[in-house]
Amino acid sequence: MTFRGKHLLGIEPLHPEEIRTILDLSDQYVDLNRRAMKHSDALAGLTQINMFFENSTRTQASFELAGKRLGADVMNMAMQASSIKKGETLIDTALTLNAMHPDLLVVRHPHSGAVDLLAQKVNCAVLNAGDGRHEHPTQALLDALTIRRAKGRLHRLNIAICGDIAHSRVARSNILLLHKMENRIRLIGPPTLMPSGVQDWGVEVYDDMREGLKDCDVVMMLRLQKERMDGAFIPSEREYYHRFGLDAEKLRYAKEDAIVMHPGPMNRGVEIDGTLADDINRSVIQEQVEMGVAVRMAMMDLLARNLRAETTGVMV
Amino acid sequence: MTFRGKHLLGIEPLHPEEIRTILDLSDQYVDLNRRAMKHSDALAGLTQINMFFENSTRTQASFELAGKRLGADVMNMAMQASSIKKGETLIDTALTLNAMHPDLLVVRHPHSGAVDLLAQKVNCAVLNAGDGRHEHPTQALLDALTIRRAKGRLHRLNIAICGDIAHSRVARSNILLLHKMENRIRLIGPPTLMPSGVQDWGVEVYDDMREGLKDCDVVMMLRLQKERMDGAFIPSEREYYHRFGLDAEKLRYAKEDAIVMHPGPMNRGVEIDGTLADDINRSVIQEQVEMGVAVRMAMMDLLARNLRAETTGVMV
Amino acid sequence: MTFRGKHLLGIEPLHPEEIRTILDLSDQYVDLNRRAMKHSDALAGLTQINMFFENSTRTQASFELAGKRLGADVMNMAMQASSIKKGETLIDTALTLNAMHPDLLVVRHPHSGAVDLLAQKVNCAVLNAGDGRHEHPTQALLDALTIRRAKGRLHRLNIAICGDIAHSRVARSNILLLHKMENRIRLIGPPTLMPSGVQDWGVEVYDDMREGLKDCDVVMMLRLQKERMDGAFIPSEREYYHRFGLDAEKLRYAKEDAIVMHPGPMNRGVEIDGTLADDINRSVIQEQVEMGVAVRMAMMDLLARNLRAETTGVMV
Repeated sequence: MTFRGKHLLGIEPLHPEEIRTILDLSDQYVDLNRRAMKHSDALAGLTQINMFFENSTRTQASFELAGKRLGADVMNMAMQASSIKKGETLIDTALTLNAMHPDLLVVRHPHSGAVDLLAQKVNCAVLNAGDGRHEHPTQALLDALTIRRAKGRLHRLNIAICGDIAHSRVARSNILLLHKMENRIRLIGPPTLMPSGVQDWGVEVYDDMREGLKDCDVVMMLRLQKERMDGAFIPSEREYYHRFGLDAEKLRYAKEDAIVMHPGPMNRGVEIDGTLADDINRSVIQEQVEMGVAVRMAMMDLLARNLRAETTGVMV
Repeated sequence: MTFRGKHLLGIEPLHPEEIRTILDLSDQYVDLNRRAMKHSDALAGLTQINMFFENSTRTQASFELAGKRLGADVMNMAMQASSIKKGETLIDTALTLNAMHPDLLVVRHPHSGAVDLLAQKVNCAVLNAGDGRHEHPTQALLDALTIRRAKGRLHRLNIAICGDIAHSRVARSNILLLHKMENRIRLIGPPTLMPSGVQDWGVEVYDDMREGLKDCDVVMMLRLQKERMDGAFIPSEREYYHRFGLDAEKLRYAKEDAIVMHPGPMNRGVEIDGTLADDINRSVIQEQVEMGVAVRMAMMDLLARNLRAETTGVMV
Repeated sequence: MTFRGKHLLGIEPLHPEEIRTILDLSDQYVDLNRRAMKHSDALAGLTQINMFFENSTRTQASFELAGKRLGADVMNMAMQASSIKKGETLIDTALTLNAMHPDLLVVRHPHSGAVDLLAQKVNCAVLNAGDGRHEHPTQALLDALTIRRAKGRLHRLNIAICGDIAHSRVARSNILLLHKMENRIRLIGPPTLMPSGVQDWGVEVYDDMREGLKDCDVVMMLRLQKERMDGAFIPSEREYYHRFGLDAEKLRYAKEDAIVMHPGPMNRGVEIDGTLADDINRSVIQEQVEMGVAVRMAMMDLLARNLRAETTGVMV
């Protein structure tokens, strides 16, 4: 029933019990967010700084709302416009912010490992909001919460993750989490978008959607990282959609009550059929966004409790 | 004595009685803003999101201050830097934000009708902060409040609206509001800057300032939308100022106590003489800005009351 | 024991007693910021607007956190994206904001004197966050606090200010403050980076680091304003570092317990050796950042007290 971490750097170091603790508290915050009065004082008196070295509307907005609803003093740093342009290093920036005594530092960075490095230099709790191709732990947690609420459990499910696995930190964090919770994971996509070494990950790999979706409980589509694509990967968006885009026909191979997920933003008509994405009987894509705010509230609440316990010597 | 709306999409659907309710509450917020302690809890526990798809310092600042002073958790979305660049549609953006459970969504968009469309897709209250050439309702309301406070009434006044009518949502919303309140409206400007069909609007149209200003109580200047101008409209700024720019000489044709208005930002020496704009005996331009914050506080307060009433079944 | 100002425009008009009042209150805010609960209500109900016409991550962040921790409603204006682009003047922008009833206006501007001009046009308290080459008073105050805490006093110290004096408002405000407090000031740098007229400032001028640092208690390095440099000033960064960059060897000429300061962001290996900058036995660079938040909290608290006293007629 405990979460012991000082930071949330990735899914990898989490115990299944810690994951359950996070999701249980998240459920409570889902309820709070659905009320008219959606404000608590869990983070009152604390300072949260959001440092996004990559733009991300939805993730930054989700963390910002989460902090504000918990009563924190929240500050966004526009890192593109920052001292970094004046030649300051990441470490100097981190030390500078650290000297301002933040309690929670939310960081997104284009380089894998940059957030871990930063966490070693500061005194506050650090939350990884996505680093390179490494991890995006709050996304995996919100996906887990969405699945648990839709399916009633988070174990022994057949879960397909489909599309651009190679470039996706979302896929990586999800695989780690779903593995810990003892689910059966299938990766489906063109071989050119599979990471090297995938055969050692304990997952099943398919390059045919119909075959891979067979008997699945959950179909998790990924965003096609167009900006990182070149001719080597895929012939065309149309060809990609034909083979790997999710539509009602392909979905018929999954279980009758299978849910459809996507981390957003969607490329409609490329990764997924627009009508299917909007079908509230199958798609839980809006729920994922809703769960995102709740999961981030829970994570920051838990980290803040541990911060306070550290200074008073009591473990929460 | 009631305001029944779920949204504020435009002046068009408002009843005169609703307009009076809004202005009455705004008067109270003017008083609050003039105090040292200018903070209330009217929106405590609620979430306000500002989505500006067009830059606007003053309108966004006005809404932001209004929300913060009422105790809301306020979040600004920089829509230029957002997922929209990644190919997400307006509707997907709206649905994503909606899933984060905002209570008040303030939207400015370059396309007429975009805010109405968005309002149909979300559960929260939507405030139109300007959509294309369509409406800018809070501007018309703050202008009405300014007039009512300066003139002691908001009916049976002679009101001139001068300049670039064709491109102006400010003009459109003001005409709708001032009409509902039974004023006599004159539009003054070059024929090339008059909208087509203006002869059916129940207004008088002039292309001569001295003639049009005769006996006016209120002279409302408009911003010249330079960015939308080309040679077809006006010969030069200097020529425009000569014929349509407001100065002390032209103002003499209006009533002796006529007030001068401008929505800002002003092009001094083009639409209006700088000395006249600063003349506190004639110009109420700074008051307009002050009224802006108060009107937005009143609108958000009223919409939030209706939101709460909806969930509890009681009408306010 | 009093601070009487309505604004903080520069160090020049401050009395030594006022400086002591500010630093004494700042010490209290240092303590608050080191606590888990770092929030007070000193500015509750007040509105703070940050107007930065030049980008500055650390100064803007410091003022924003200071205001939020004191409970103010804080709004940042992105002045680059603002109405200024639409041709509005600085004065119109100031009058517009003034009409929204801010209590505290924090302004950075690239032109010397712009902040003073603005202060004459508004009713609220104005804090200069740096104007051209003129002043940067909160930087000088935070430097003074850092020195006083490290050295136990703020008078009769030998203080060297080194590098690009000519372009530096930081140097100018520091010289004014340290002079008022009766310290011995030495300026060290290449003649091309010395301001004209420096011989009348009551300081000693050196162009040799070893000679100038002799017996110093405090070594204050300045940022090299690369963006304003051309071939006329310095031969190369490498040559500059060789002659004027601070390293352990040059520092040996100062007193054994001399402290090393830098306003940031640093150019490591140009103005200062990276290892020395990180040496917590000599460098107080992180403390400077920490003191910055505290000094800004103290300044805004004092100005707000005077604002309130003005309306009630009682002097604080």
